[in-house]
Amino acid sequence: MASSSSAAPQAEAFPDGTTDYVPLRKKTYDIRKPHITEQPITLQNWYQHINWLNTLFILVIPAVGLISSYWVPMHVKTGIFAVAYYFFAGLGITAGYHRLWAHSSYKAALPLKIFLAAGGSAAVEGSARWWSSLHRSHHRYTDTEKDPYSVRKGLLYSHIGWMVMKQNPRRIGRTDITDLNDDAVVVWQHRNYLMSVVTMGLVVPTLVCGLGWGDFLGGFVYGGILRIFFIQQATFCVNSLAHWLGDQPFDDRNSPRDHVITALVTLGEGYHNFHHEFPSDFRNAIKWWQYDPTKWFIWTMKQVGLAYNLKTFPGNEIEKGRLQQFQKKLDQKRATLDWGIPLENLPVVSWDDFVEEAKTNGKPWIAIAGVIHDVGKFIADHPGGKALITSAIGKDATAVFNGGVYSHSNAAHNLLSTMRVGVLRGGCEVEIWKRAQAENKDVATVTD
Amino acid sequence: MASSSSAAPQAEAFPDGTTDYVPLRKKTYDIRKPHITEQPITLQNWYQHINWLNTLFILVIPAVGLISSYWVPMHVKTGIFAVAYYFFAGLGITAGYHRLWAHSSYKAALPLKIFLAAGGSAAVEGSARWWSSLHRSHHRYTDTEKDPYSVRKGLLYSHIGWMVMKQNPRRIGRTDITDLNDDAVVVWQHRNYLMSVVTMGLVVPTLVCGLGWGDFLGGFVYGGILRIFFIQQATFCVNSLAHWLGDQPFDDRNSPRDHVITALVTLGEGYHNFHHEFPSDFRNAIKWWQYDPTKWFIWTMKQVGLAYNLKTFPGNEIEKGRLQQFQKKLDQKRATLDWGIPLENLPVVSWDDFVEEAKTNGKPWIAIAGVIHDVGKFIADHPGGKALITSAIGKDATAVFNGGVYSHSNAAHNLLSTMRVGVLRGGCEVEIWKRAQAENKDVATVTD
Ligand code: HEM
Ligand code: HEM
Ligand SMILES: [Fe+2]
Ligand SMILES: [Fe+2]
Ligand SMILES: [Fe+2]
Ligand SMILES: [Fe+2]
Repeated sequence: MASSSSAAPQAEAFPDGTTDYVPLRKKTYDIRKPHITEQPITLQNWYQHINWLNTLFILVIPAVGLISSYWVPMHVKTGIFAVAYYFFAGLGITAGYHRLWAHSSYKAALPLKIFLAAGGSAAVEGSARWWSSLHRSHHRYTDTEKDPYSVRKGLLYSHIGWMVMKQNPRRIGRTDITDLNDDAVVVWQHRNYLMSVVTMGLVVPTLVCGLGWGDFLGGFVYGGILRIFFIQQATFCVNSLAHWLGDQPFDDRNSPRDHVITALVTLGEGYHNFHHEFPSDFRNAIKWWQYDPTKWFIWTMKQVGLAYNLKTFPGNEIEKGRLQQFQKKLDQKRATLDWGIPLENLPVVSWDDFVEEAKTNGKPWIAIAGVIHDVGKFIADHPGGKALITSAIGKDATAVFNGGVYSHSNAAHNLLSTMRVGVLRGGCEVEIWKRAQAENKDVATVTD
Repeated sequence: MASSSSAAPQAEAFPDGTTDYVPLRKKTYDIRKPHITEQPITLQNWYQHINWLNTLFILVIPAVGLISSYWVPMHVKTGIFAVAYYFFAGLGITAGYHRLWAHSSYKAALPLKIFLAAGGSAAVEGSARWWSSLHRSHHRYTDTEKDPYSVRKGLLYSHIGWMVMKQNPRRIGRTDITDLNDDAVVVWQHRNYLMSVVTMGLVVPTLVCGLGWGDFLGGFVYGGILRIFFIQQATFCVNSLAHWLGDQPFDDRNSPRDHVITALVTLGEGYHNFHHEFPSDFRNAIKWWQYDPTKWFIWTMKQVGLAYNLKTFPGNEIEKGRLQQFQKKLDQKRATLDWGIPLENLPVVSWDDFVEEAKTNGKPWIAIAGVIHDVGKFIADHPGGKALITSAIGKDATAVFNGGVYSHSNAAHNLLSTMRVGVLRGGCEVEIWKRAQAENKDVATVTD
């Protein structure tokens, strides 16, 4: 049921449902041929290491667009259209490629699927099938060698390096995309990818601006090329910035991080620590004040009946994760602090010796809760005054310390633990007296 | 050494160094006479319950000032002077009455003491001796009946009610002020309080503005009356707002709270949770970005040689307090979450029964780490797909769940714990097989 097809002999102990990525277009592709990435980059072969097609799309054409914009005046209507089209393309990637196809976090009716696939094409970031397959590897093998855009290889690599440089397909972790192969929209877009990209990325913006208000050139440069450039750079940030900048409220074993800046740039994909922990949740942010327009879009589609089965992770589990991560940080912090000598490492002192040391040898010792404390250095600093603390030397001050005279703060208890010098044999004074009574023995009478 | 004088017979078991407050001025005062507060407030006696002198100073005169300001034009120089004089009076209370005399958090040379006592008089909030005695009771008996301005009696009570209404002196917790009685500046200011107040509160501002730029009336109204009103209300906020608004990063057993608004109003006394926990620290805020101008003032005085022995609580102890409070909140939060059925409450199931239930009776059971989980409701939602999770039914999936196929997130482990239905007798599958081997018994062979 799980494994769809695999030419290579399957050696795994457990059928893990994954397959090598099988391209639907380039029929001659053979995964077993040696790959250029297996050779080191040299002055002679460097150009073979570069993926020139990707470089053309994500670097050369945008550069040409940027330069030519110098001569192309910006029409107000074209500007507004370009921004709207930017959001359309962005949602194609975030609500479509990412949350619908890569993570199946909700189900979409056909019109919505077509809308999202069209938007995704307009963003010029590969087909939904290719993108989702890689993205699943990214989640399954985050930060490892099999992660297609591991941030451990550098911020620039995770941003565009993984597209500009050729990648060894055998390195990328395998994933199960049988569900995508069953999705007609995904398969159609994949098979007609080049046509889709040219149409949605360039032709449509040019025609809209041209037929709409006569600005063919502006539509091409601003609505097409430059808008593509900006949406690409923005969504690439999910792989770079979102693994580099911000907090880790749910798990800090891997690189994903939460940051509002990333969220602002990426239509809400910036709560990436949450997302890697709860990838099947249609939300990336759960608080109402967090910026997640992709979530709002999906929710709106649900209201109009185009989206359904929106998956959410149980709130209880989310809070558990947050709590455990907090606890982890707290434990790390705790280990860096001084909590006083552990009781088991302290010498055991008898009551009589304790009194003797304090009374005869002038040791500034006070017994509290069965532990002997040297308060010598603290007498002058005692917020309750010298007199009170001095009056307790050589005595059991458990009761007075704990409310008899003053109910000391938590801080005072902490401070006390740093002054430990010994443990009383038998516990508090009263215990010692009770035992003596029971054993009918005499204890040295304590006099003030 | 500790107890200075006490007319009432001393019945306490432990000499706690405290005394009833002994006024230095009103010689006829007798603490054993019945007090008006012991009678309920009625239509006949309500005016006897009111402390008219205080009411005059903190309500009537300010009201007169506010009304008269309508006719008195505000001179720019007078305005600037009033603000400067406001800070002078404020520091008299915060750096003087509070941190120097009530808490002995540093030592001051004579000129600084005189400066602070003069500022304190200008604020018209009682003598340093009276103020510090009450404030020590407030710290020692925070939030209890003995607290002179307990916020438990209402925000308004803690703000001005405790001054406007007469108080039973026997109710207020007793404190040790022997050190203040030894301080010449404190005693002098106390004995000459009325003269000090009139001079510093009204005469000086009137003369400065009058002789300086001819604005006698403005000096009296703005530099005197209204400035007094504002500094009073501001510093009263330490007793009200600081026990009512904000966070409790160090201890939440009592009411003190940290808030930047309170800090802004009170020259830095707003980090009141910290302050009640570490009262002998000359700082109220320890982070550089927190607003504590009183601390900056004391620090500056140290640089010019007028303040010394600035006390700070050890950083290690402060962090311990913060950590423990965090831990406490985390534990409270933990108790509200569902952590799954405890293992000891689960039925113990033998390996053969487990396999039988899954294979023959179609129970969607998966064994992981010796615990049996019912994944039935989760199969359709599994982010790793239906196929993989289904393939593990009736098996021990410990290894595949923990990295064999996919190293599941912390969130997945949490979720798993909510699906518990039983414990495997003997632990993981491999344990059962090893034991069978050792005992030379046969185990039902598991076939896929
Ligand atoms: C033995 C070690 C002691 C330590 C480390 C210690 C520590 C402290 C600390 C840190 C405070 C500041 C307020 C607080 O944190 O609660 C304080 C206040 C006080 N202590 Fe102690 N103390 C000790 C012993 C005693 C004893 C034996 C007495 C009485 C017999 C005493 C009586 C007081 C009183 C009355 C205050 C209140 C001061 C005020 O807020 O006005 N302390 N102590
Ligand atoms: C038995 C109860 C199971 C639970 C509660 C569970 C839960 C989850 C969860 C919450 C995720 C999302 C990612 C994460 O949190 O790490 C996930 C992903 C995954 N699970 Fe499971 N799982 C279970 C069993 C299995 C089994 C038995 C297998 C394999 C045989 C498996 C294979 C996977 C894979 C491969 C992914 C990665 C999906 C991706 O990120 O592309 N799971 N599982
Ligand atoms: Fe990621
Ligand atoms: Fe994702
Ligand atoms: Fe307070
Ligand atoms: Fe205080």
